[in-house]
Amino acid sequence: MTDTLTEKRLAELDALAARAAAAAEPFAATSPNDRAAALVAVADALAAHAPELVELGITETGLTTARLNGELNRTAVQLRLFADVVRAGEYLDARIDAADPDFVLGARPDLRRLLVPVGPVVNFAASNFPFAFSVAGGDTAAALAAGCPVILKGHSGHPMLGARTAEVVATALAGAGMSDGVFQFFTGQQEGVAMLKDPRVRAGSFTGSIYAGRMLADIAAARPAPIPFFGELGSLNPVFVTAVAIAERGESIATSYVASVAGSAGQLCTKPGFVFVPQGHNLESVIHSAAESVPAHRMLNPRIAEGFRTRRDEILATPGVSVVAEGELNFDENEQGWATVTVVAASVATLRLHRESLLAEAFGPLSILVEYEPDEDVAALVTELFEGNLTATVHIGAGEESPQLQELVRVLSEHAGRVLFDAWPTGVAVTPAMQHGGPWPATSSDSGTSVGTAAISRFLRGVAYQNTPQALLPLPLRDANPWNVPQSLTARGESGSWGSRGI
Amino acid sequence: MTDTLTEKRLAELDALAARAAAAAEPFAATSPNDRAAALVAVADALAAHAPELVELGITETGLTTARLNGELNRTAVQLRLFADVVRAGEYLDARIDAADPDFVLGARPDLRRLLVPVGPVVNFAASNFPFAFSVAGGDTAAALAAGCPVILKGHSGHPMLGARTAEVVATALAGAGMSDGVFQFFTGQQEGVAMLKDPRVRAGSFTGSIYAGRMLADIAAARPAPIPFFGELGSLNPVFVTAVAIAERGESIATSYVASVAGSAGQLCTKPGFVFVPQGHNLESVIHSAAESVPAHRMLNPRIAEGFRTRRDEILATPGVSVVAEGELNFDENEQGWATVTVVAASVATLRLHRESLLAEAFGPLSILVEYEPDEDVAALVTELFEGNLTATVHIGAGEESPQLQELVRVLSEHAGRVLFDAWPTGVAVTPAMQHGGPWPATSSDSGTSVGTAAISRFLRGVAYQNTPQALLPLPLRDANPWNVPQSLTARGESGSWGSRGI
Repeated sequence: MTDTLTEKRLAELDALAARAAAAAEPFAATSPNDRAAALVAVADALAAHAPELVELGITETGLTTARLNGELNRTAVQLRLFADVVRAGEYLDARIDAADPDFVLGARPDLRRLLVPVGPVVNFAASNFPFAFSVAGGDTAAALAAGCPVILKGHSGHPMLGARTAEVVATALAGAGMSDGVFQFFTGQQEGVAMLKDPRVRAGSFTGSIYAGRMLADIAAARPAPIPFFGELGSLNPVFVTAVAIAERGESIATSYVASVAGSAGQLCTKPGFVFVPQGHNLESVIHSAAESVPAHRMLNPRIAEGFRTRRDEILATPGVSVVAEGELNFDENEQGWATVTVVAASVATLRLHRESLLAEAFGPLSILVEYEPDEDVAALVTELFEGNLTATVHIGAGEESPQLQELVRVLSEHAGRVLFDAWPTGVAVTPAMQHGGPWPATSSDSGTSVGTAAISRFLRGVAYQNTPQALLPLPLRDANPWNVPQSLTARGESGSWGSRGI
Repeated sequence: MTDTLTEKRLAELDALAARAAAAAEPFAATSPNDRAAALVAVADALAAHAPELVELGITETGLTTARLNGELNRTAVQLRLFADVVRAGEYLDARIDAADPDFVLGARPDLRRLLVPVGPVVNFAASNFPFAFSVAGGDTAAALAAGCPVILKGHSGHPMLGARTAEVVATALAGAGMSDGVFQFFTGQQEGVAMLKDPRVRAGSFTGSIYAGRMLADIAAARPAPIPFFGELGSLNPVFVTAVAIAERGESIATSYVASVAGSAGQLCTKPGFVFVPQGHNLESVIHSAAESVPAHRMLNPRIAEGFRTRRDEILATPGVSVVAEGELNFDENEQGWATVTVVAASVATLRLHRESLLAEAFGPLSILVEYEPDEDVAALVTELFEGNLTATVHIGAGEESPQLQELVRVLSEHAGRVLFDAWPTGVAVTPAMQHGGPWPATSSDSGTSVGTAAISRFLRGVAYQNTPQALLPLPLRDANPWNVPQSLTARGESGSWGSRGI
């Protein structure tokens, strides 16, 4: 797949990987304060360049000023949050087992374990979040926080913004004393594949389509030395509304539904793709009116608009599908697509008959309303119809709880990384308890999250030190604990009690 | 690869997977006390059946009574340790972010996250630890502790012991009230492949050869829905001895070296395969005498003995290799191999010239002594010669510390999961701070460990709950915290301070 790259281009990529590999050790050894300061420097630089960067983003992506300002702010906050994680040091999971001559299995040596950075990470930027999931986005912040050099593959959808953001990031890192291999930027699909295959690269991260993500995951797994690949791929984000919720606040649910589908022209991985409502919900006209009032929004780029046209046409042409709000998709003289909201209705029987055309992501402002009968086993429907998802949502009445609801929530937790109530899944908070991931095909590896502070653990591996002199131990494992990180101790004598200690 | 399985056999495997899938939800929902009690019941049952099981093990593996008694005890202790982990509840990583209307990025919802079991795990038993890495071994204990049903593929090297241990485990679990899908046993290579491909299986674990592990890892990665596969594969376990250490206690190092190579006929994944000693170490005669005094030990099975013969012959025939202690490998009338210790010497130049024949695992009692020159850059040698390893060892003099030594330790930590001092890598303590894993090819995924309590995390994934009514939350995330698990709280107002909270 990389055989059409020139010798010169291959040499450039080789130099990138070499610089990242050379930067890995000194960057891994940075003190918590120095690494945190570098992350804060990037956050400050992004904020300082906000007007220029947002302007570029508007031109290249068609997203609104408000959205991009908010996204840039979120991206900066994300970096500061990871700086906080680095300073706190809990992520190192430092553990110390004191030597114990009376251990139940014979003398136990002094054992100390911590998590260390895996090494250079190639991070593939997404098209739909030109800040938060792109050059300086969540994967970059998490990898840098972990102490891994980042080699960033820019997205072709916002090339000028990508390159300019990369300059801002690189300059900020240099100003914070980091070497030029800590963060590097390149573009090109074949180049991305070549970099993923480079033996000096030790992990990959990606946000994008199932098709591209699967291709890259397969490449990462097929390397002579396989590496972990964290792809955030596609999601249908089913929503379930109870009859009580409809009775209490049907209209408000309907209008907020349309707003969630309309935002950013529906080009969000958490867009609610399917909303299950009880028969007799009577919300069609509210949904129709709300959808009609949404102005056309430019789609990210002609390729995505074309893909949306194909999926939208396919869904509209599926037998049994009826239109609630038809919406529009028009192309301007620059081949940019402009879309309004499309909502269609389909019965459960129609979904069953046309799984292939209906139960796949439509990346854009389209959602499918599904009526269920009063005696429908909704939890069973989830298992029957859905694979893994990033999110699953339930709208319930005040205080509503039943065995059926308990079962629905349990089944949803098997199919999604985040289960939410009485809200819409678009909008992902960046906090310690966020989970943005889920079983295949929501992600290529559901062991991690790509949003929230737990995202750092994807780029770490454990190393244990046995009987090691203090002077030869990594600082976080020394008795003197110069970085003052949390150390989990198993004292002598605790080893055989099986009473008090966790992991 | 599974096309020669009969319809009947495929139906049996299907029933196994169906039972595991049906058991997944109730088993995941067990209380910490119930799940811990089940693990303890298995430990008690193993101990109660020790004489019978050890007897079977002696017959089928050729390992000694002392070794197998110790291994069975270790296996029982391991289960008790995981019971302790389950009761403590830290492994759930429960996090609660309080809702915060004043969050820096806009109102933050109530978010709660915990780790949940991934679902049924297929676990491939190893040949060389018929208890500790087999039916009721570390992977089984970790997966059961995580709340995952285990489908255990028994090893052909100890079929009677495997089947009998499985009966003991299953009976103990039934006695503890667990359903029959929580633990199941099967055999057969093609059957193993078929099970790994079953969509109801959500993770795989394995201990064995690079060849088989890579084949299975590739199958796991190529599934329509890929799953994590944790293979513990091959390791060369390099050891470095300083001149000061030789001067202080050369003879003791030499004799303990031979003992480490000889134990269990060298059929340990942590056997020291390469020992780097300074020129003029003068230990040949001590090594020779120590090796001569080791009686012949039966190898695990004819296939492994044959494999060892091939590798041993290849190494002995490599130009530049000289014999320190020749040792023997003889086959009895049952085609069982009986081996004594072989130690050969090779220069660094010879290793460079014959990487393929020398720098690969020899699974048996053989080790290569490598002389390095006084001015040799030993750290650079590690990078030049070695891929990933489970362990790396350094023998130093009292108080010895130099920049060269610091650099060696750092480089070793890049190439191994455990770095140890003044001891031998065989013998792996089961404790919170143990790391048994390492970069490829030591493991197929170096994100986890297969020994120690941290091993549980391989079988968990995160789920977040947003704005969820108390009655619909999993118990560990409720305010009332009925299981009394550690909950990591981010209070309202903590969200924008970037001061005090880790992950």
